[in-house]
Amino acid sequence: MIINQDQKKRVEKWFCELRNSICAEFEAIESEYSSEASSVFTRKQWDRATGDDTHGGGGEMSVMKGNVFEKVGVNISTVHGKFSDEFAKKIPGADDNSNEFWASGVSLVAHPRNPHVPPAHMNTRMIVTSKGWFGGGGDLNPIFDISEDAQFFHEAFKNTCDRYDPEYYPKFKEWADDYFFIPHRDEARGVGGIFYDYLDSGDWDADFAFTQDVGKTFRDAYCALVRQNMNKPWSDEEREVQLIKRGRYVEFNLVYDRGTIFGLQTGGNTEAILMSLPPVAKWD
Amino acid sequence: MIINQDQKKRVEKWFCELRNSICAEFEAIESEYSSEASSVFTRKQWDRATGDDTHGGGGEMSVMKGNVFEKVGVNISTVHGKFSDEFAKKIPGADDNSNEFWASGVSLVAHPRNPHVPPAHMNTRMIVTSKGWFGGGGDLNPIFDISEDAQFFHEAFKNTCDRYDPEYYPKFKEWADDYFFIPHRDEARGVGGIFYDYLDSGDWDADFAFTQDVGKTFRDAYCALVRQNMNKPWSDEEREVQLIKRGRYVEFNLVYDRGTIFGLQTGGNTEAILMSLPPVAKWD
Repeated sequence: MIINQDQKKRVEKWFCELRNSICAEFEAIESEYSSEASSVFTRKQWDRATGDDTHGGGGEMSVMKGNVFEKVGVNISTVHGKFSDEFAKKIPGADDNSNEFWASGVSLVAHPRNPHVPPAHMNTRMIVTSKGWFGGGGDLNPIFDISEDAQFFHEAFKNTCDRYDPEYYPKFKEWADDYFFIPHRDEARGVGGIFYDYLDSGDWDADFAFTQDVGKTFRDAYCALVRQNMNKPWSDEEREVQLIKRGRYVEFNLVYDRGTIFGLQTGGNTEAILMSLPPVAKWD
Repeated sequence: MIINQDQKKRVEKWFCELRNSICAEFEAIESEYSSEASSVFTRKQWDRATGDDTHGGGGEMSVMKGNVFEKVGVNISTVHGKFSDEFAKKIPGADDNSNEFWASGVSLVAHPRNPHVPPAHMNTRMIVTSKGWFGGGGDLNPIFDISEDAQFFHEAFKNTCDRYDPEYYPKFKEWADDYFFIPHRDEARGVGGIFYDYLDSGDWDADFAFTQDVGKTFRDAYCALVRQNMNKPWSDEEREVQLIKRGRYVEFNLVYDRGTIFGLQTGGNTEAILMSLPPVAKWD
């Protein structure tokens, strides 16, 4: 699909609004948890421009280190430029168009302090080459097997998906299960969620609305799960299990996560890319 | 060079002897540090055989969690089989010989508890295809810039190298500097050491003697550095710096280290490969 300037602006604006509403909710959760020591996000802008037409745009990181969220980052970025010839071959529509691309997105990784509050990840994005499409998803990474939490998270996404296409949820759930898997450990990163890419149904407004709803669904479902679990007591042993599980998260992100590897090896913003890593992790 | 069975046996035996002497020295260090709570290595064997001729051999991990060494692993392995066609193309002599290979080596990674005791890594190995060669090296990863430690470590390797060939040390030092570098952080992993590969001078006995001396040099120099620093007091702030530096170590090993990536993605022994990861690490 051909994407015009107005559409790009609307998408970029939405990712910023979603970021704002998520940060506001997370700060509200910190206040509810402890009215005395409330935490807030710190923002930091970064610039991708290098003086030529291959690298343009930039982004803004938002990081909070709080009592509920030991570390949570919400990044937005809108970048444009030219892919290398090598990379352009792998991207739909990129080699039709002088390798030019435009991409905007929002990414979130939350590492809660309480081992009973599940870590989570969400990303939604629009990519434009000579084609244009949406991608994204969200996944939950509980330390312990709390099947009600997993069920609640999946049902929220299923309800949203079903409003658009009954085939979305089963397809996007399977995609998440395939993607968020750690082969060398022969274990899943978490309990999954949804993952989708190259979404171009022919109805851009519907695809954009779906992507907006994925972000809102994640926000609302995850905030509910955090509030539901954040006051549960935990033991030193449970903390240890959490830190080992975080080590697995590090392994997935550094060994397999496509965005992380691509970003690190092509001169992306290291600080923004590695915002996803936990504040502390352990290995046996 | 053509390698015979007797040579393979001598090499495998040496790696086992080196492992034994290093473990004995590290246990002695633990006893010197605290005569009451002495720590010992725990050994665990693993088997690489899968029932066909592509995967044979195995190895033995030795891990100690002590007071001086928060975590130290010394692994030996002797494996043989057939490379995939894809991989064989990248290995000297492998595609001349039905992709067959034999490899034996010893690997060590030490993560000391005291931030003033530098972490260190050592590996030596012999690889046999239709050709045969030695490789290995050692590098030091101090948390703080203790130039005397770095100088002592480098001088030890230089003395050893110079006994064999005056070109070895400058060449192998540069190789280590190039290899142990973290591009996305634009920083070195540590202060380097030596790194060599494809060593086949035409005099197998000399190459084997050199590889033995690299192992002994590492053992003696590193043990001296540990003893010299292990009783220094440290602060919480210094511990924090150490844990952040360990995060960088994790990044290097999971994103760039060729042995780690190859091992994980080709079904190697995950526990032995990831023995290198620190017991605990932090990210900002």
